[in-house]
Amino acid sequence: MKLRYGGDYNPEQWPEKVWDDDHRLFGAARIDTLTVGVFTWGLTQPAEDTYDFTILDRIVERAAAEGRQICLATGTGAHPAWLARKHPEVTRVDFEGRRHRYGQRHNSCPSSPVFRRLSAEMARRLAARYAGHPAVVAWHVGNEYGGACYCEHCAAAFRIWLRDRYGSLERLNKAWYTTFWSHTFGDWDEIEPPSALTEHWRGPDHTAFQGITLDYLRFMSEAMLTNFRDEKAAIRESDPDTPVTTNFMGVYRPIDYHRWAADLDFASWDNYPPGDDLPEWMAFWHDLIRGIKGGAPFWLMEQTPSTTACRDVNPLKRPGVMRLWSWQAVAHGADAVLFFQMRAGKGASEKYHGAVIGHAGRDDTRVFREVAELGAELEQAGDAILGARTPARVAVLFDWDSWWALEISDGPSRLVRYHQVVLDYYRALWTAGVGVDVLPVTADLSGYEVVVAPVLHMVKGDLAARLAEVARRGGTVLTTFLSGRVDEDDNAFLADVPGPLGELLGIRVDEWDARPAEVINPVRFGDDTTAGGSLVFEIVIPQGAETVATYTHDFYAGSPAVTRNRFGEGEAWYVATRLDQPGVDRVVGQVLDRHGLRGPFPPVPGVEVAERVAPDGRRFTFLLNHGSEPAELVARADATDLLTGDRVTRGSTIRLAPKDVLLLQ
Amino acid sequence: MKLRYGGDYNPEQWPEKVWDDDHRLFGAARIDTLTVGVFTWGLTQPAEDTYDFTILDRIVERAAAEGRQICLATGTGAHPAWLARKHPEVTRVDFEGRRHRYGQRHNSCPSSPVFRRLSAEMARRLAARYAGHPAVVAWHVGNEYGGACYCEHCAAAFRIWLRDRYGSLERLNKAWYTTFWSHTFGDWDEIEPPSALTEHWRGPDHTAFQGITLDYLRFMSEAMLTNFRDEKAAIRESDPDTPVTTNFMGVYRPIDYHRWAADLDFASWDNYPPGDDLPEWMAFWHDLIRGIKGGAPFWLMEQTPSTTACRDVNPLKRPGVMRLWSWQAVAHGADAVLFFQMRAGKGASEKYHGAVIGHAGRDDTRVFREVAELGAELEQAGDAILGARTPARVAVLFDWDSWWALEISDGPSRLVRYHQVVLDYYRALWTAGVGVDVLPVTADLSGYEVVVAPVLHMVKGDLAARLAEVARRGGTVLTTFLSGRVDEDDNAFLADVPGPLGELLGIRVDEWDARPAEVINPVRFGDDTTAGGSLVFEIVIPQGAETVATYTHDFYAGSPAVTRNRFGEGEAWYVATRLDQPGVDRVVGQVLDRHGLRGPFPPVPGVEVAERVAPDGRRFTFLLNHGSEPAELVARADATDLLTGDRVTRGSTIRLAPKDVLLLQ
Amino acid sequence: MKLRYGGDYNPEQWPEKVWDDDHRLFGAARIDTLTVGVFTWGLTQPAEDTYDFTILDRIVERAAAEGRQICLATGTGAHPAWLARKHPEVTRVDFEGRRHRYGQRHNSCPSSPVFRRLSAEMARRLAARYAGHPAVVAWHVGNEYGGACYCEHCAAAFRIWLRDRYGSLERLNKAWYTTFWSHTFGDWDEIEPPSALTEHWRGPDHTAFQGITLDYLRFMSEAMLTNFRDEKAAIRESDPDTPVTTNFMGVYRPIDYHRWAADLDFASWDNYPPGDDLPEWMAFWHDLIRGIKGGAPFWLMEQTPSTTACRDVNPLKRPGVMRLWSWQAVAHGADAVLFFQMRAGKGASEKYHGAVIGHAGRDDTRVFREVAELGAELEQAGDAILGARTPARVAVLFDWDSWWALEISDGPSRLVRYHQVVLDYYRALWTAGVGVDVLPVTADLSGYEVVVAPVLHMVKGDLAARLAEVARRGGTVLTTFLSGRVDEDDNAFLADVPGPLGELLGIRVDEWDARPAEVINPVRFGDDTTAGGSLVFEIVIPQGAETVATYTHDFYAGSPAVTRNRFGEGEAWYVATRLDQPGVDRVVGQVLDRHGLRGPFPPVPGVEVAERVAPDGRRFTFLLNHGSEPAELVARADATDLLTGDRVTRGSTIRLAPKDVLLLQ
Repeated sequence: MKLRYGGDYNPEQWPEKVWDDDHRLFGAARIDTLTVGVFTWGLTQPAEDTYDFTILDRIVERAAAEGRQICLATGTGAHPAWLARKHPEVTRVDFEGRRHRYGQRHNSCPSSPVFRRLSAEMARRLAARYAGHPAVVAWHVGNEYGGACYCEHCAAAFRIWLRDRYGSLERLNKAWYTTFWSHTFGDWDEIEPPSALTEHWRGPDHTAFQGITLDYLRFMSEAMLTNFRDEKAAIRESDPDTPVTTNFMGVYRPIDYHRWAADLDFASWDNYPPGDDLPEWMAFWHDLIRGIKGGAPFWLMEQTPSTTACRDVNPLKRPGVMRLWSWQAVAHGADAVLFFQMRAGKGASEKYHGAVIGHAGRDDTRVFREVAELGAELEQAGDAILGARTPARVAVLFDWDSWWALEISDGPSRLVRYHQVVLDYYRALWTAGVGVDVLPVTADLSGYEVVVAPVLHMVKGDLAARLAEVARRGGTVLTTFLSGRVDEDDNAFLADVPGPLGELLGIRVDEWDARPAEVINPVRFGDDTTAGGSLVFEIVIPQGAETVATYTHDFYAGSPAVTRNRFGEGEAWYVATRLDQPGVDRVVGQVLDRHGLRGPFPPVPGVEVAERVAPDGRRFTFLLNHGSEPAELVARADATDLLTGDRVTRGSTIRLAPKDVLLLQ
Repeated sequence: MKLRYGGDYNPEQWPEKVWDDDHRLFGAARIDTLTVGVFTWGLTQPAEDTYDFTILDRIVERAAAEGRQICLATGTGAHPAWLARKHPEVTRVDFEGRRHRYGQRHNSCPSSPVFRRLSAEMARRLAARYAGHPAVVAWHVGNEYGGACYCEHCAAAFRIWLRDRYGSLERLNKAWYTTFWSHTFGDWDEIEPPSALTEHWRGPDHTAFQGITLDYLRFMSEAMLTNFRDEKAAIRESDPDTPVTTNFMGVYRPIDYHRWAADLDFASWDNYPPGDDLPEWMAFWHDLIRGIKGGAPFWLMEQTPSTTACRDVNPLKRPGVMRLWSWQAVAHGADAVLFFQMRAGKGASEKYHGAVIGHAGRDDTRVFREVAELGAELEQAGDAILGARTPARVAVLFDWDSWWALEISDGPSRLVRYHQVVLDYYRALWTAGVGVDVLPVTADLSGYEVVVAPVLHMVKGDLAARLAEVARRGGTVLTTFLSGRVDEDDNAFLADVPGPLGELLGIRVDEWDARPAEVINPVRFGDDTTAGGSLVFEIVIPQGAETVATYTHDFYAGSPAVTRNRFGEGEAWYVATRLDQPGVDRVVGQVLDRHGLRGPFPPVPGVEVAERVAPDGRRFTFLLNHGSEPAELVARADATDLLTGDRVTRGSTIRLAPKDVLLLQ
Repeated sequence: MKLRYGGDYNPEQWPEKVWDDDHRLFGAARIDTLTVGVFTWGLTQPAEDTYDFTILDRIVERAAAEGRQICLATGTGAHPAWLARKHPEVTRVDFEGRRHRYGQRHNSCPSSPVFRRLSAEMARRLAARYAGHPAVVAWHVGNEYGGACYCEHCAAAFRIWLRDRYGSLERLNKAWYTTFWSHTFGDWDEIEPPSALTEHWRGPDHTAFQGITLDYLRFMSEAMLTNFRDEKAAIRESDPDTPVTTNFMGVYRPIDYHRWAADLDFASWDNYPPGDDLPEWMAFWHDLIRGIKGGAPFWLMEQTPSTTACRDVNPLKRPGVMRLWSWQAVAHGADAVLFFQMRAGKGASEKYHGAVIGHAGRDDTRVFREVAELGAELEQAGDAILGARTPARVAVLFDWDSWWALEISDGPSRLVRYHQVVLDYYRALWTAGVGVDVLPVTADLSGYEVVVAPVLHMVKGDLAARLAEVARRGGTVLTTFLSGRVDEDDNAFLADVPGPLGELLGIRVDEWDARPAEVINPVRFGDDTTAGGSLVFEIVIPQGAETVATYTHDFYAGSPAVTRNRFGEGEAWYVATRLDQPGVDRVVGQVLDRHGLRGPFPPVPGVEVAERVAPDGRRFTFLLNHGSEPAELVARADATDLLTGDRVTRGSTIRLAPKDVLLLQ
């Protein structure tokens, strides 16, 4: 047993004689796990009444014969051409109201009865055939679920979903506030999916009725979850045990991964950061994905060994970066490191996407060498880390409902992006080197000393009470501007802002200003240092809270921009504007100081420190130098670097070359 | 009697017990007028054969009982959901050719027989019910008319409109110049609405046939006017007297407000400037709206007390700004100051739009305090100003046809925006402090000493003769580049540019250059000072006119950029390029000097001066400090500030705090 | 016989009495050739069963009577309104899947049987009527062919085209690499035109299947060629001899002009450069258009005498510029200089497009004066240049397939634009003053010493062998990054990059980086000078080639950015990044130096030198000063300026005023 290593493998795209080269090179690189069949529906079901698993059989058998394990995909991420022609209902209708015809991938209407029947049948037959196969270690359902459909099947399913949710039109009309603009619905069939042809203007974020749009987002996420469930249930008919997953993505708004969590046996995701120097972005998503399943190890299902293809500009991963990012995934809880893709296809839109094996089939490329070296390292690390958990006393809350509600809101500012603000606060914690769990708002908060919930726009259920409890028992809660604004239906609380959080925070917000991004209002702290505030400026009237920092400009100069309220044994902080990163770092730092929460090493620019603790209590400390300069740290204890076997003695200087990694035990 | 004060009030959105709070707070703020029922169609007609005025009755009765007056809306600005489902024809087909389904507001096809029948029937029933009700002081038909429809009903109506306009296809083919690109129409039914599917490329301003597009703009504006007329006629069946209006918008190109004017009993508009420091923009639109009804007082139907919601960034009105802008409206002729909205709704797209009463229902917010203080001031001012008129010896011409023709034109420059250039010239007049009427080109010009008609692209009917008459009798006419280019059909005059204006201006334009916005050609005046020219550079060959300023760059350096022609007893000026604001100020200043036209005070930066004269001859002078610095002026006569009762003596210094207002009598 | 002079003439748009003025002014300007009937379908066929050539007869007869010759258009560039109404199939379905209705021009579906039948019938009847007319010297079929259609007729025609191309679905599936994303086609009818509704995202360049999109581009270009052939064949039924052409455009990607070449009797194009100071852009397109027909003289079919109309900003041609650009066309092989348009129409979208005769009909405008002066000059030049050829020892390859394949590719960089890179290299040659032929990749390369093929993304047929032959016999081949990547089906070569060019170039590309445009990696040459590299950075491993320049930054610093490989008697150069212009100039300069290839004069900034050689061996040297400063050159031989008759003696100084032209013999 060891950390899995491998990736997406599509040998059906090339002649079988090439498979020999593939496996020879896999051996050289210590590849042990292959994701197979992600887009094979057209191959395994060439016509509605014909199933043909010949090639898939050969792929699986060959892998097994070579001693490799398989994550077997159901292949339903793209439907075959004959299906779209025979049953046009399987294609999607887009936001503009256009029925698509055959093309691309991720192209199936989630509500199409034909799609639901045939995709489940494919999963059923695959499971019947491969269940119990010793090489098959996991099921991979669909692929990167996403997008949306606005067809009549979806409209009908939406109405049923609404009946289930609201029970009556009266309740729905109230939730959606339909007295506004004469929108009262008198019949379920009057309800249309919100689109460019109905409630929207200027695109998916601009809607006349937030409630309708919000519910459609929820419905669509759940409709796709239903597709996943269909296939999983079909698998379970033959295979009761093998774990089932699907691969999530980073910063993907349409699918509420938290609501999907219970249905996955383990989590996995595809790490394609939107830039080549965003270690905290990746750390955040690793932590979020880990948080989905309560901290259990996850799979890094895809990453490129070198470049992407679909971006306007596709930079190359510099030497050492693929290794660094792979270990970062492990540091944050991954038990598998997989690539897209094992060998480059020669045609279509991913022919220039990086691969372990390139078009020329060489084993002497830089990329292949680095892949092989990492393979050796993973083998060296063995099973030590497998199953280890991340110790964290800080929780960051992340909430798809707040994400949606904030970004479809008219006013106060379209410039506030939920994920960016949350990342500001995460970045401060990451820089400080403390372990963090990124959690849904429904998570148990009782184990955390600090809970950070930036832009908690929507406050649902007993969340306010649970946050208050964190403070009451001595913890710290931190939230920001535009929090506590709306209830689960996106209706404003008929109370002082921030609604149910007001008592905890000891403030009320009287009004709020919004300004273009270039307008900075310096915020002054008690020691006369300042940080920049921007985008939104809430005017806070303390109701017991102490003022930590004040605005310095405009008519609200002198009024609080940051407050702290003693509540029970703990504290609740409020940041009323979008602070720049130094400002956020400072506020977060004060919170951490109160709890004595700092990472095992003093922060060094560019160096990430992360820990995992094995079930037997062994503690692994990962030192990752994302910077372009060598870094030095002072060892705090005797330890061994599992990657080199080198010993580190307490008090000695640990040197990390740029992009280098140490794994101390 | 006093200036009305109040705004849009939608109590149907909340429980009746809240109405008590509403009226209590209205009392505190001296609110006397409520606009009711703007979006109540779904409420008052819950099904095609069911009308229900119960709630509206209660709203009206309660207001009346509280002594408040009502501007009663017909509620047809958004149709109910059942209507769209039962009669899909009531929804619009957009510019892209897509039939919309139920959603949003301002969503009805103006040519739909069903919509026309049922909207008129709603107005009929409302009038039958509330005509004669002592609280009802005005009818408010529809809401912010606008948008466009391209459906088959509209196509058919367009063809009928064209038959009426042209009589024969021969005349139409000539007007549209259809020999070009083989477009000759041989049958009325061959004519299609100009859209993305027919004559347009790159959007609504890029058309292959300007004549078709121009006529569709005219038709659509009139189709919506027909909707207004339908409802007004239905009201008049029961209520012969109560004045009827609808609320216009600022800088709204699709509706030709001048062609609507005769049908409105009084004008009203919604003041949402596209920025928070545009006093001259607001002044211009106040003057334009006043000009629509020949100078009669109008209503400021909507303004936000604090923030908008629909903008990307929604800044807050600073302290004093709401008061300042309210008095500015009055200074320019408003007899009513109304807000959108009296109480914030809790859901949907306007929940963050500012309101007199916020979600928490407080009376101690800054916004409520300022509203209440203004209420007291308006009460203090009493009936003095009511019905007063604006004295003006300067007219600025504004012409929807020129606006349309210019901005749908291919060549010479898409960067010239009609409203911006007109505003440049208005700004110069506004800064100089002179009273201005903004008028349609059909207006009687005989009472004006100066007529400014920037970018008078289209010259129709006897306009050229009437402008010549202004100069002949000693007045001054000023126009600019891209004037006198096309006739009513948007066909170029087959004559020297500027066509019928050539003799008056004493010039001909031989050719014209257009350059990107960053290319500035300094224009030199006789005293060797310069101003910047940009965008379009016409090469003028004087035919009698005197050269006032010349280009300094390019091959046309030394040729005239500004000319003045003596004509009869007066003068005609031509500005051949887009001058920067100092250049426009200078040219306008020379014109004003000739007529000794200057405001009552020497200009002070940021301070606006405006006058109204009551029917009994009392003169009211408004001093409005839009700036952020205190200002001082010297009193030119003894006077009383109606807002404070303070006396001002001639020669004394008047001090205006930032955002402050004085109303001298 | 002389160089033709004239242009598009549409007298059907105005009364016959104006024709007298037209011809009087044509006489004054020495206009001898008129393009007639470009958009007359609606006139000549007012209904399906009615043809009426009355007006066209008069136009032709009048021109003939005045001694002018006619380029007679078939007028099918826009269909009549009745045709669209009666046969909606003639209109196009756009990329978004929307069926257009009547409007604009270039509006016919190329696959519509009705359009094909009636357009050919129009050509047939015109030819039957005017064949043999002594004034008719050429046929002008359609107009500026372009755009695309995605209707069912096109889908069906595409499937037939695919059957012809591939023979079997098996071959097609292989070519399109359809195993990817489950796309295997089992029936021809499953294939859809690639559009926003099928394979595309973010527009026409973003496709899931490059093979499908590439083939549709090829198909659509050929479908329109079929339209041209239909009409030409119909003409040939009556008129076996008069040459037939259609007017091409510059930088027009959708139509593969090389594949059209064989069907045109002579080439012609419309010169509307995308800026007003792009002499090398125009030179390139002149050379490309000349290259289409193997170097035979072409017609400059359209240019504006003054301004365009359809741009956002339409600058005026400065004095002398129209003359300069006209002579530039002649210098590069034009035997005709024609304008759009002879007289300005008064309505619709081209009313502000420049014309020889403006709306006022004057002959004393600057524009008319310059046109008349050029007319006199052309008359003065007489027949000397007619039929002269351009001597060139350098070929630049231009390939529509590479253009398409590169720009629809996912990865490595959307910022690389084919035409821009080719123009970089052409500019270096142009600046050096050497004669260049711009050729298709199928051209015979045996006569050239230097072949420059930038971004030769796709390598088809025996091209690699023919390039190798150029070097083997002592010539030089130069190519760049992103060359040799794909085969004719856009499938990657399963070999080291640059595939079949590897041996010739003596390199292999191991991997490649792509960076945003602002990232510059200085490239250092042997003499320590540097040039900027950007966009794409290929990491080259020499396989025999010598390193000419190296990267200086990033982890590939020191590795080759420019290489030279000795091959046979010659050399092959590779440039692995997008060099800035000085870098390209330097590399190209080194290549030219090897062959002693320099223009007849040392380069002078802004001055273009071009040569033509008459069949009798007379050599004409054109000196064109595009700059804004006077220029001086030293005469290299005794000569006569054909435009002034001035003698130039060897060694004397030739002075060229800004925008001036000399034509030395």
